[in-house]
Amino acid sequence: MITGKNYIGNSLSAKGSVTYKTFNPKANTENEIVYTEATSEEIQEAAHLASEAFKEFRAVSGTKKAAFLNTIADEILALDDELVQTYMSETGLPEGRAKGERGRTIGQLRTFATLVEEGSWVEARIDPAQPDRTPMPRVDLRKMLVPIGPIVVFGASNFPLAYSTAGGDTASALASGCPVIVKSHPMHTGTGELVASAIIKAAEKTGMPNGVFSNLNSSGIEVGQELVKHPKVKGVGFTGSIRGGRALLDLASKRPEPIPVFAEMGSINPVIILPKALEERAHSLAKTYAGSITLGTGQFCTNPGLILGLKSDGLTSFIETLASEIVTIAPQCMLHPNIHNAYSNNKARAQAQKNVQTKANIDDAVTENYAQQAVATVDGMTFLENRTLHEEVFGPFSLVVQCESKAELEQIIANLEGQLTGTVISEQNEASDYDTIINALSDRVGRIIFNGVPTGVEVAPAMLHGGPYPASTDSRFTAVGRDAIKRWVRPFSYQDWPNELLPNELKNHNPLGILRLVNDQETKEAL
Amino acid sequence: MITGKNYIGNSLSAKGSVTYKTFNPKANTENEIVYTEATSEEIQEAAHLASEAFKEFRAVSGTKKAAFLNTIADEILALDDELVQTYMSETGLPEGRAKGERGRTIGQLRTFATLVEEGSWVEARIDPAQPDRTPMPRVDLRKMLVPIGPIVVFGASNFPLAYSTAGGDTASALASGCPVIVKSHPMHTGTGELVASAIIKAAEKTGMPNGVFSNLNSSGIEVGQELVKHPKVKGVGFTGSIRGGRALLDLASKRPEPIPVFAEMGSINPVIILPKALEERAHSLAKTYAGSITLGTGQFCTNPGLILGLKSDGLTSFIETLASEIVTIAPQCMLHPNIHNAYSNNKARAQAQKNVQTKANIDDAVTENYAQQAVATVDGMTFLENRTLHEEVFGPFSLVVQCESKAELEQIIANLEGQLTGTVISEQNEASDYDTIINALSDRVGRIIFNGVPTGVEVAPAMLHGGPYPASTDSRFTAVGRDAIKRWVRPFSYQDWPNELLPNELKNHNPLGILRLVNDQETKEAL
Repeated sequence: MITGKNYIGNSLSAKGSVTYKTFNPKANTENEIVYTEATSEEIQEAAHLASEAFKEFRAVSGTKKAAFLNTIADEILALDDELVQTYMSETGLPEGRAKGERGRTIGQLRTFATLVEEGSWVEARIDPAQPDRTPMPRVDLRKMLVPIGPIVVFGASNFPLAYSTAGGDTASALASGCPVIVKSHPMHTGTGELVASAIIKAAEKTGMPNGVFSNLNSSGIEVGQELVKHPKVKGVGFTGSIRGGRALLDLASKRPEPIPVFAEMGSINPVIILPKALEERAHSLAKTYAGSITLGTGQFCTNPGLILGLKSDGLTSFIETLASEIVTIAPQCMLHPNIHNAYSNNKARAQAQKNVQTKANIDDAVTENYAQQAVATVDGMTFLENRTLHEEVFGPFSLVVQCESKAELEQIIANLEGQLTGTVISEQNEASDYDTIINALSDRVGRIIFNGVPTGVEVAPAMLHGGPYPASTDSRFTAVGRDAIKRWVRPFSYQDWPNELLPNELKNHNPLGILRLVNDQETKEAL
Repeated sequence: MITGKNYIGNSLSAKGSVTYKTFNPKANTENEIVYTEATSEEIQEAAHLASEAFKEFRAVSGTKKAAFLNTIADEILALDDELVQTYMSETGLPEGRAKGERGRTIGQLRTFATLVEEGSWVEARIDPAQPDRTPMPRVDLRKMLVPIGPIVVFGASNFPLAYSTAGGDTASALASGCPVIVKSHPMHTGTGELVASAIIKAAEKTGMPNGVFSNLNSSGIEVGQELVKHPKVKGVGFTGSIRGGRALLDLASKRPEPIPVFAEMGSINPVIILPKALEERAHSLAKTYAGSITLGTGQFCTNPGLILGLKSDGLTSFIETLASEIVTIAPQCMLHPNIHNAYSNNKARAQAQKNVQTKANIDDAVTENYAQQAVATVDGMTFLENRTLHEEVFGPFSLVVQCESKAELEQIIANLEGQLTGTVISEQNEASDYDTIINALSDRVGRIIFNGVPTGVEVAPAMLHGGPYPASTDSRFTAVGRDAIKRWVRPFSYQDWPNELLPNELKNHNPLGILRLVNDQETKEAL
């Protein structure tokens, strides 16, 4: 049951007087439940509890953390239809998407459970003492990854489950041993509270310390700012806009003790279609891309917002087919009126730029909050010079850039901002003729795709979801996949520490049976 | 031969008009060679060359990078007596230290050579396609670590070789595939130029692209600031003061594209001596610590500046012996008059704080630039409340805090700033009675030492040199040991990429024979 309150650790709390409601974009009406924003006092309490919980939680075994994470997954499933209905009412997304995203969320929780139960992820390194070494004996050194402390997580508007309350940031932080304080998303606070209740239930069932998780509501930015500035908070996870992510990074950087911020932000996900591919399959590519651009109403961070090719009949044919195909797709509801308005404004701004030609646009009136997809084209030189055209239009819009030459294409790629993904569409043996362009693209992105679409972010060890700024604030980490846990940990060394006082991961006889680097060799053997 | 010029890639250059000289603290006179500061034009050139060189260098094989690093080591050795004499003339440090540090530097270069020649460090992960998976086929994903781009390195005053021009930052960045621009240290610019010449020679001998390394001189902060702000610079390594490191971090954070700064900064390296240890061996501990405090004239970042114990006869005896021992050690020359002055002022300021009692101080006149070592004590409550006493006094000074109770000791530890190291001196079975104190200490440090001294930083895979802010700007990385390479790399994913176009690290048949995570299992097998 949704109460509209905050979770301060295991307790529901609503001390404040500021309230708000969420919005059903499909029905174009407010939802009924009233949410109470967290007060400064509640923020203090949550941070204090998290800091106290950390003292115990940091040392909880991988097996117990796995039980916690798996129980969260179970409790989310147990929310059943209430969760699905709430999700739909707060996003306008269909039931299939709700259930699919729930599956992804649960999969992520169980993946991190498996990772920490197995235990080798801590990168244990052991360099045994060499008492007889000359001129100086060598000390015994042992190192492993340890959690950094309470993490604040900001959920994404477009993924109320998989990138929000119990999404990848929370799952990876809890797996690492860091308590989490979620600043719930104002657009899906009800979904957030339900998931929070599942986490709290799981924490109680598996004996986790009170404060290992809190969930704070607010419709504005102040609660989040206060959390990021709080001295007891040691890291931040964020998924959202460049402006929002950068503001949090700036806030965290100015703290007396700066803390790491991992923000996964905007991206226009350039797609380069090479000439032979255009010649051979412009039509089918256009159909595929019409689908990718409108998938999820274009509300994916990996949406292909920029398509590049060399001027040719093939490219013209691609543009024409893309234009005619995309308008045949029925407009879909966006997540919120604010997102719909931003889409309309940003799209119109792009379309109004000099030399930009709109090729397809659904101009008919559509249902309120539904997105009118569009495709536009521009020449390479104009795109190169007009940075407005490099900005993300969040929604089902894509700009096709027609380049004069390989040199111009390479120059455009080299001058792009950092991106989550880059895609190369190529015939067999064609790509090797474009190595400087592909190298330039590689320098600008986190993931490079061959003959596919950027939408669809597989949860797998080899996934990199992130990229050079502003795709993310720190390209050295990923938001998706098992390595996402590395954002919340630091290496810690023990020197000459007594075996019986060492954590199990570093004890001589390797009680956990994990893979360790001993004397620079990977091994599961005891010392 | 030292020219006094900058290296802009492979070319010596001195376009500027601002000059300076280094100083011989032992002779208390300026050295003769005149150094020309780099101009804005030279900074631009170096950054441009580095960025161009990166296009080629990023793809240079591990074997070739290893040859480059090993040749740097050879060329440094070939500098022979000229390097040792220059080092001594610019630091006041003895020949043994010069040669020892040279050995460490060469060892680091060869360690990174071995690492990249073997190749498994790139953390290759392969998740092969599952075309038959339902409901959606799985794409082929492959990930590895790739270099982020040109890195600016600021050397340390106290380690002209091991933490400067070709020190750990440069060696790890070059090993990763990142070009390096060194902002040479104004106190040892001659040593720096000699080492830079060795790097340039090695780059030429092993066919590295021009611009893979540059070395820029300046006596002030402007050259460094300009470098950190340069859009083509993608990361910063720094070893030095909190003020200096924080200034660079702030500058990098404010860039349109923020970049990572790894600064290894100040630390007072707390040492907790438990009661039984004090009871059993106050005398021998005091002797050991008199040596550790004065080692290298106290000019190590791991110098034990803070010693804590519970009030007792043992602690009194420890303080008395430490005081009497430390004054028997002959004062030594510091690195530079500025460092000597800062030491004298900071020491005097600490000694002048309320309730601080000076227990040992060499008051006699000593040779110019020589440090007068000192020991002082204070009660726990005063230390807790006076943050001035928490600040590093860089030099042979240590403050002994006499705590009233375990609770007070724990509170003090929990309120310390982040530290590089923490040390626990304990009798057998004693430490387990102090687990909350040791946990609090673990939370504040990067490396914890049992019954030893913090001075001495072994170069080993299990070393962590860094720690919570302000010990370093990002506790998630180390400045020493093979993992130092992780500061300069980011993960990069290939999706459905053709096997023949993949880097060797990710090709099906594993041509490099490296350890890879395939389907979540570590293996050296081909696919």
